[in-house]
Amino acid sequence: MASRCSPEAACPAAFRAWRTQPGYSFSAAAGPLPAAVAHEVAEACRPGPGSILSLPFTSSAYRDLQAETEACLRRLLAIPDAFAVLFLAGGASAQFAAVPMNLLVAEGHGAAGAGARRETGAEAPGTAVAAGAAEFASALYIDSGHWSRRAIAEARRFARVAVRELAGVSRAAGALDEDAAHPFAYVHLTPNETADGLQFAQLPPTRAPLVADLSSELLTRPLDWQRLSLAYAGTQKTIGTPGLSLVVIRRTLLGRVRADIPRLMDYGAQAEADSRLCTPPVLPVFVAHRMLHWIEAAGGVAAMAARLHGRHALIAAAMAEGEAAGLYRWMAPAGWRSRVNPCFRLPDEETTARFLDAAEAAGLRDLRGHPARGGVRLSLYNGLSDAAVEALADFLARFARGRVGSGIARCGRGT
Amino acid sequence: MASRCSPEAACPAAFRAWRTQPGYSFSAAAGPLPAAVAHEVAEACRPGPGSILSLPFTSSAYRDLQAETEACLRRLLAIPDAFAVLFLAGGASAQFAAVPMNLLVAEGHGAAGAGARRETGAEAPGTAVAAGAAEFASALYIDSGHWSRRAIAEARRFARVAVRELAGVSRAAGALDEDAAHPFAYVHLTPNETADGLQFAQLPPTRAPLVADLSSELLTRPLDWQRLSLAYAGTQKTIGTPGLSLVVIRRTLLGRVRADIPRLMDYGAQAEADSRLCTPPVLPVFVAHRMLHWIEAAGGVAAMAARLHGRHALIAAAMAEGEAAGLYRWMAPAGWRSRVNPCFRLPDEETTARFLDAAEAAGLRDLRGHPARGGVRLSLYNGLSDAAVEALADFLARFARGRVGSGIARCGRGT
Repeated sequence: MASRCSPEAACPAAFRAWRTQPGYSFSAAAGPLPAAVAHEVAEACRPGPGSILSLPFTSSAYRDLQAETEACLRRLLAIPDAFAVLFLAGGASAQFAAVPMNLLVAEGHGAAGAGARRETGAEAPGTAVAAGAAEFASALYIDSGHWSRRAIAEARRFARVAVRELAGVSRAAGALDEDAAHPFAYVHLTPNETADGLQFAQLPPTRAPLVADLSSELLTRPLDWQRLSLAYAGTQKTIGTPGLSLVVIRRTLLGRVRADIPRLMDYGAQAEADSRLCTPPVLPVFVAHRMLHWIEAAGGVAAMAARLHGRHALIAAAMAEGEAAGLYRWMAPAGWRSRVNPCFRLPDEETTARFLDAAEAAGLRDLRGHPARGGVRLSLYNGLSDAAVEALADFLARFARGRVGSGIARCGRGT
Repeated sequence: MASRCSPEAACPAAFRAWRTQPGYSFSAAAGPLPAAVAHEVAEACRPGPGSILSLPFTSSAYRDLQAETEACLRRLLAIPDAFAVLFLAGGASAQFAAVPMNLLVAEGHGAAGAGARRETGAEAPGTAVAAGAAEFASALYIDSGHWSRRAIAEARRFARVAVRELAGVSRAAGALDEDAAHPFAYVHLTPNETADGLQFAQLPPTRAPLVADLSSELLTRPLDWQRLSLAYAGTQKTIGTPGLSLVVIRRTLLGRVRADIPRLMDYGAQAEADSRLCTPPVLPVFVAHRMLHWIEAAGGVAAMAARLHGRHALIAAAMAEGEAAGLYRWMAPAGWRSRVNPCFRLPDEETTARFLDAAEAAGLRDLRGHPARGGVRLSLYNGLSDAAVEALADFLARFARGRVGSGIARCGRGT
C-alpha cells in the first residue's frame, strides 16, 4: 500500500511550490496537523473501495465515524448531555447569521417550534415585522476586535444589536448585561480575537445565554458550560482542516427559529437529523476524528492548555529583551494577551518588513499580521510542533539582539 | 516519503470495516474516485509544512489552486465568460434556499444591488412584504421526482412557487413556462433525479432563466449555456468528495438579493470575493482540482458522456433477458431513463432483498434504492471503474438467468 502514496504522483502547479517549502507555517488561517494525524488521513485516502474520499454519508460507517467524533469531543470538553453537538458544513462565519436566525425570533415571525422553551427569562419584546425593516428582540455583542465586528455586521442583517466596547466589559462588576435597559436574547463574545492578539482570560458571567465564537481556541483550554450556552468553531485552526464547523448548543435553545431560515441553518432541524439534513463534509469530519483522538492521547484539553501556557511563556521570554528595547510591542494590554495568537508590532513598517523577510529566510512563514491590523502574528494552534515553537522563539531572540544597537536602536523606545 | 503512508497507521474503529471490504460500491450518495486521483490526494495529505490539510486559504498557493480548478471546469464545460463560477461550502441542498433568496427579491424587499439587471423581461410583480407572510415574485419548479420536491419544499419557505408536473412538461410544445398566467422569475429543474432513475434527455427551453440542480450529472454530458442561467452541484458524486458545491451563474443575475440573506449565501458577494468570504473547503477543492484534470486527461466531458452511454447500454443489455421475463422493471418510462442512475424494481420485496443480498455477496454494494422510492439503484458516476461496471453487468445477467425458471418465474409478468 505504501507505494500507492509515492511522491511521484502528479501535483497541481499551484501546490507544487507550497508543498516543497521547508520550515514552519504560523498561519492564523489554518493550523498545522501533527504528523501522526496527517499520516492517518493520507492512509485513509488511499485508492480502493475503502477510501475515505468516497465514504457515503448514508453508510453506517459514516454514522459511526461522526458518533465517535462527537463522543470524543464530549469527553475532551466535558460537554453535558443538556447540549447538542452539530456538525455543519463550511466556516464559522456561517454561524454569524445562523445565531441570530436561530435565537432571535420575534413574536408573530413564525416560530417553528411552538413548545420551545427559553433558558432565560429574557423573552423577546418582538413584534410582527417586515423583513428589511425588522424589529427583532435584540442581542448584546461584545466588540473586542476584528472578528467580533464581523459577527456584529452580519447579525445586524437579522436583528437589533447592542454593542458593548471592551472598555465597558473591563469595567463591568457583575454580569456583562445586567445594566441593560431591557433583557437581551443572548450575549455574543469572541473570546480569542486572532487579528488583535486579544483573549479573555475567562468567560464572563452573563444573564442572557452566552454565545461564543471559539474558532481559534476550541480545545486549547477547558470550557465552563455553566456560563456558556452556545459555542461554535470552524475546525481549520485547532481541530483539523477547513470545511467543517462544530456547534455545541444547549438543547433548550433549539426549536424556535424564524420561519424563513434556510433549513440547513436551523439548529433544531439539524439536531433532529443528527446533522445529516444534507451531505456532511465527510473528509473534514474524518480529520477532526483523528485530531480529537490525537489530543485525547496527548492528555486531553488540560494538556493542550498547559502546553500552550508553556509555549506562550517561551515566546514571551524570547521577546523580553526586544520588548525592553522597544522593538517588540504587544498589541493587547497585559492581562488580555492571546495565548493562541500573540500579536505585536515593530517600530515601523520598514522594520516589520525586515522582520518578516528575515523570518521567511529562516523558514518561519506566515507571520504577517491580519491585513486589517498589521504587525506580526504568531499562531500557536494545537497541531504546531515543539520544533516550530523553539525555532520561532530562537528567531525572536536573535532578531532582537541583532537589531538592537543597529538600525533598530535608533528608533528604540522604552515601554 | 512513501513510507509515511504506511498501512500500519491507526484507523478509527468505524472506518476499519468499511475500508477493508472488497468489491465495488455503487452508492448514489458518493461517487468513487479513480485510483490515480485518490493516489494524488493521499500524497498531498502527507505530513509536513506542505500538507494540503494545512494549506491556508489566504495563501497564493490556495488562490492559484482555486483559479486552476475554475479554469479547468470552464474548459471542460465551455462555460462562457458571461458566467461566474462560485466555490461554496457544503452540499447542494444549501442552494435550495440560496436560489430563491438570490433570484426572488420583491420590490421594496431591500435589493442589495440597485444597478442589477435581469436577464429576462420577467420582472417580479413583487410588493413590500412582511416576512412570514411573504408575497414574492414566483418561480416555476418542475416536479420530476424526489429531489425536485426537496427543492420545492425549501423554496416555499422563501417564495411563491408554481409547480409543473412531469406530465405537463412532456406535453409542453414550446417553452415550459410560456403559458403561465404571469412571468416567472426563474424555472427550476432537476434534470437527473437520482431517487427515481429519471433524466431529461436535454434541457428544455424556457422563457425565464433556467436553474438546474446538476449534483448527480455535472460533467457527465455537455451543457447548453444558451438555455441554462444557473447550474449548481455538490461535488461528491461526479467531481470529487463531499464538502463543496459549485455554482455557475450568469453574471446578469448577480447583485439583487434579499436584504436579510446570510451574506455567505449571496452569490453576488461571493463572486466579488472570489468565493472567499470565509474559509473555503480547501481539501474538497483540491480533490475537485485533481478530478477535473483527470476528466480532461481522459478526453473531457464528451468522453465521459460517450463512456456513460456505453456503460448504460452494457447494463441495459445485461438486464434485457430479465426485463423480458418481468424480473427487472425500469422505474422511469422509456426515453426518461437516467443514464447516471438507472433504477429498477423487482417483482416483490422478497426478490429485491434476495437480489441485494446476492449482489452484496458478490462484492457489489450500495445498490439499494432510495428509501423514499425503494427498488434497486445503480450509480454510474464518473469515477467508477470499468471493472465495476463489468462485474455489475455480469451479475445482472447471471441473477436473471439463475432466477428465471425458479422462484422468480412464478411472478414473471410481461412488460
